[in-house]
Amino acid sequence: MFVNLINKLISTSAKKPPQSIARTVSTTTAMSPAPLQPIFDKLFPKVEELKPDFINVLKQAVEIPAVSGDESLRPMVVKKAKFLASQLESLGFHDIQLKELGTQPPPVNDSNLQLPPVVLSRYGSDPAKKTVLVYGHYDVQPAQREDGWDTEPFELVVDEATQTLRGRGSTDDTGPLTGWLHVVRAHKEAGIEFPVNLITCFEGMEESGSLGLEELIAKEAKQYFKGVDAVCISDNYWLGTKKPVLTYGLRGCNYYQVVVSGPKADLHSGVFGGIIAEPMVDLMQILSGLVDSKGKILIDGIDEMVAPVTEKEKEIYEKIDFSLEELNEASGSNTALYTSKEDILMHRWRYPSLSVHGVEGAFYGQGAKTVIPAKVSGKFSIRTVPDMDSEKLTKLVVDHCNKSFAKLGSPNTCHAELIHDGAYWVSDPFNAQFTAAAEATKVVYGMEPDLTREGGSIPITLTFEQELKTSVLLLPMGRGDDGAHSINEKLDISNFINGIKLMGAYLHFYAQSPEN
Amino acid sequence: MFVNLINKLISTSAKKPPQSIARTVSTTTAMSPAPLQPIFDKLFPKVEELKPDFINVLKQAVEIPAVSGDESLRPMVVKKAKFLASQLESLGFHDIQLKELGTQPPPVNDSNLQLPPVVLSRYGSDPAKKTVLVYGHYDVQPAQREDGWDTEPFELVVDEATQTLRGRGSTDDTGPLTGWLHVVRAHKEAGIEFPVNLITCFEGMEESGSLGLEELIAKEAKQYFKGVDAVCISDNYWLGTKKPVLTYGLRGCNYYQVVVSGPKADLHSGVFGGIIAEPMVDLMQILSGLVDSKGKILIDGIDEMVAPVTEKEKEIYEKIDFSLEELNEASGSNTALYTSKEDILMHRWRYPSLSVHGVEGAFYGQGAKTVIPAKVSGKFSIRTVPDMDSEKLTKLVVDHCNKSFAKLGSPNTCHAELIHDGAYWVSDPFNAQFTAAAEATKVVYGMEPDLTREGGSIPITLTFEQELKTSVLLLPMGRGDDGAHSINEKLDISNFINGIKLMGAYLHFYAQSPEN
Repeated sequence: MFVNLINKLISTSAKKPPQSIARTVSTTTAMSPAPLQPIFDKLFPKVEELKPDFINVLKQAVEIPAVSGDESLRPMVVKKAKFLASQLESLGFHDIQLKELGTQPPPVNDSNLQLPPVVLSRYGSDPAKKTVLVYGHYDVQPAQREDGWDTEPFELVVDEATQTLRGRGSTDDTGPLTGWLHVVRAHKEAGIEFPVNLITCFEGMEESGSLGLEELIAKEAKQYFKGVDAVCISDNYWLGTKKPVLTYGLRGCNYYQVVVSGPKADLHSGVFGGIIAEPMVDLMQILSGLVDSKGKILIDGIDEMVAPVTEKEKEIYEKIDFSLEELNEASGSNTALYTSKEDILMHRWRYPSLSVHGVEGAFYGQGAKTVIPAKVSGKFSIRTVPDMDSEKLTKLVVDHCNKSFAKLGSPNTCHAELIHDGAYWVSDPFNAQFTAAAEATKVVYGMEPDLTREGGSIPITLTFEQELKTSVLLLPMGRGDDGAHSINEKLDISNFINGIKLMGAYLHFYAQSPEN
Repeated sequence: MFVNLINKLISTSAKKPPQSIARTVSTTTAMSPAPLQPIFDKLFPKVEELKPDFINVLKQAVEIPAVSGDESLRPMVVKKAKFLASQLESLGFHDIQLKELGTQPPPVNDSNLQLPPVVLSRYGSDPAKKTVLVYGHYDVQPAQREDGWDTEPFELVVDEATQTLRGRGSTDDTGPLTGWLHVVRAHKEAGIEFPVNLITCFEGMEESGSLGLEELIAKEAKQYFKGVDAVCISDNYWLGTKKPVLTYGLRGCNYYQVVVSGPKADLHSGVFGGIIAEPMVDLMQILSGLVDSKGKILIDGIDEMVAPVTEKEKEIYEKIDFSLEELNEASGSNTALYTSKEDILMHRWRYPSLSVHGVEGAFYGQGAKTVIPAKVSGKFSIRTVPDMDSEKLTKLVVDHCNKSFAKLGSPNTCHAELIHDGAYWVSDPFNAQFTAAAEATKVVYGMEPDLTREGGSIPITLTFEQELKTSVLLLPMGRGDDGAHSINEKLDISNFINGIKLMGAYLHFYAQSPEN
């Protein structure tokens, strides 16, 4: 699949935009940005003017700790959904629905835990216009001040010195999500007709596997989402810090846990150390056998599933603006596993990787606790790429863990399982949507965007493409050093404001496009 | 050292108690329990009568979360010291001092963090009487309801069904510590003359390495502690659940951390997975090379430091009442590494063990967080035994970790260090104190105690012995299944009450002993 697609991309890359008649009769020359300039001359200053208001809305949203991975904070996730619904209502969106997704499947502590709702709404319903579905997620990763944040993670701090907005969700994904609301407001206040019908699909479970969303999309494909021409997702980042990008590929993510259980309860290492088999010791043996320090995955059979690199594919990577120095700057260290641009980007985008995230159940605090943990769960994930099959991968992983454990001859018990999976995705970066977004980038940033893939995962991308039979565009707002999922997550004010302009310009160019 | 001691123990084990004149002229026949029976006939019913009051005092003490390992709870540790001081004052103790120990040395977050005070006090100062120093610690291990406790850990719950007292510190060591106060109260209310001069030395840092106490004991050896004839520590447990024991040996504990650092901050595994060297992956390699699943320590040079087992030593182990079933019951599992009684006890008491406690800095929560931790610290400890040298051991451990890390060829950095160490201790189980405690056990429990060692560590035991030039007796109150350092820590009500009687009886027998 992947090799075929790459070949297709190469063969079509020199294609000129078609010059056929545009679908909307009111426009003149399709794909020509010229007639739009007067609109942008009204729209962009309005966006600048509304900057304080836009930051204020983001501030209110960030203050709600909508951590989907923390069951105890579920009410906060729901609160944030309601906050968004009230914002949409005040902007004139209609048919606003908080779609319930039922109870969260195991493993959960509370078997009646409700999934957060998906916020659906419409802005406009003109049959003469194209309909664009915009997706974002309002849930966020966990964050605590003590993790090393300079300021409270759930307060949006305007850092004048760096001209950034710091706070959990600023860039992932509350900032970009609210961007769509600001685009509508800027059009209204500037008195510009909105170029498309907009549908929002804002979910609250993305950081925890988008549970329930796939089913919702399938269900609503011919109902709420009927007539959608294109899907736009703003939930990723520029490759570096200077050049805007459009993204046509994502890795998938299979998240696993391997649980080793022994004694009934935690034990004192003085009393039991040396005479019982310690689950933590077994787990260390299993986790150390998954990947080596050079990043090589040690699970048999995975390499064979990865699509080989073609010569033409290599050429794509040679064109991209990136360097080892940018990676080192982003990681704040000299810990790169590769030195060449091509090796780094290929291992980020088109090869799988395995990360060990942590251990649940063991001592994790400061200082010295002399405990033998009774039950420990090692957490790791594999980023997946074409042509890996999720089910086959899970079988390889589980078998590998079971074999590793069996070799230990331990009296403990071991269970490896998939917590969630999300598929990889690759699209055509020269279709109507990508072309419109490229034009918009030129208008807003004055440069051609790089066409990139992402190492991260937005599993739902593929679902939208398959269920709605539309193309999906990934249109990032933030930069590569924003620190999503990390401490001191930020969004540059310029990216926030230019990102809003970009969203608006993209909608106008796409509205004029002769293709869907 | 150890082999010589064992030989000495064997050669003296048949020795009769000496029949010389007792030091206190008022007593008649030394070492004969008969004249004490009338005292016990008044004392023991009084202890039974005061049971509700004794439990109430313990309840008040347990409610203070005096976790010495948690810097943020340091004020609670100090509060508990003050609570004890007020109790001592109301019982008529005098010269009560809260001895400050200065600031806590690194690693700490707050460089001005004060160590908790040591509570010194006296009860009686009759030069005709022997002086016994009783040691206990009022700090406790960390505990949170969510760790799996059935009830709030910092509330003392009287469980009528099991006739136990459940709560953090119930058995380790708040229950035994307050026991000494109850012994004094029972004597006062029963109108019995207290048989010895009592000195308390209650510390608040035992669970975090007894920082500062060694220096205090050295300093007070010829001041506050001048004239101490014997030290009694009640801070360990019966071997099983039915038979009382006296303990003459302890393992030491060297606690280590190995810190691997890479990127400046935590990173997103989608964006950075596969292209940077992950500290957690390196750490798993290091931790997995410390000990195998059979409990064998993989660090070269440690086995050679352990005193070999002699034939005579083996005989001691053969006499002890213990079985694999008791171990399985205590651990609530069938995860024992050995099946014979001798193997189990030797590996608990006279061989070193290595436990991996956890990882600081990695993801530790429920669910799935796709983080690459930037800096992770693996925590492990080695229980030490004769004739291991702490400094030499630390050099072996650090060298081993450095070598393991060097083999990985990782661009990350690694640093292994000792967090704290406490020495092992072995005594003569047939001296005056042990003999008195054995007599007391016969009176209270109607049986001879087993003479045991402990796998756990009370490093200060050796310090008392060396600095005060006295013998030290370990007189446990709780049972082997009490769950110290674990969830649902408990103390059986019968052990609490009989333990108080035992403390009282031991003081009377020891007062009559012709030897110190």
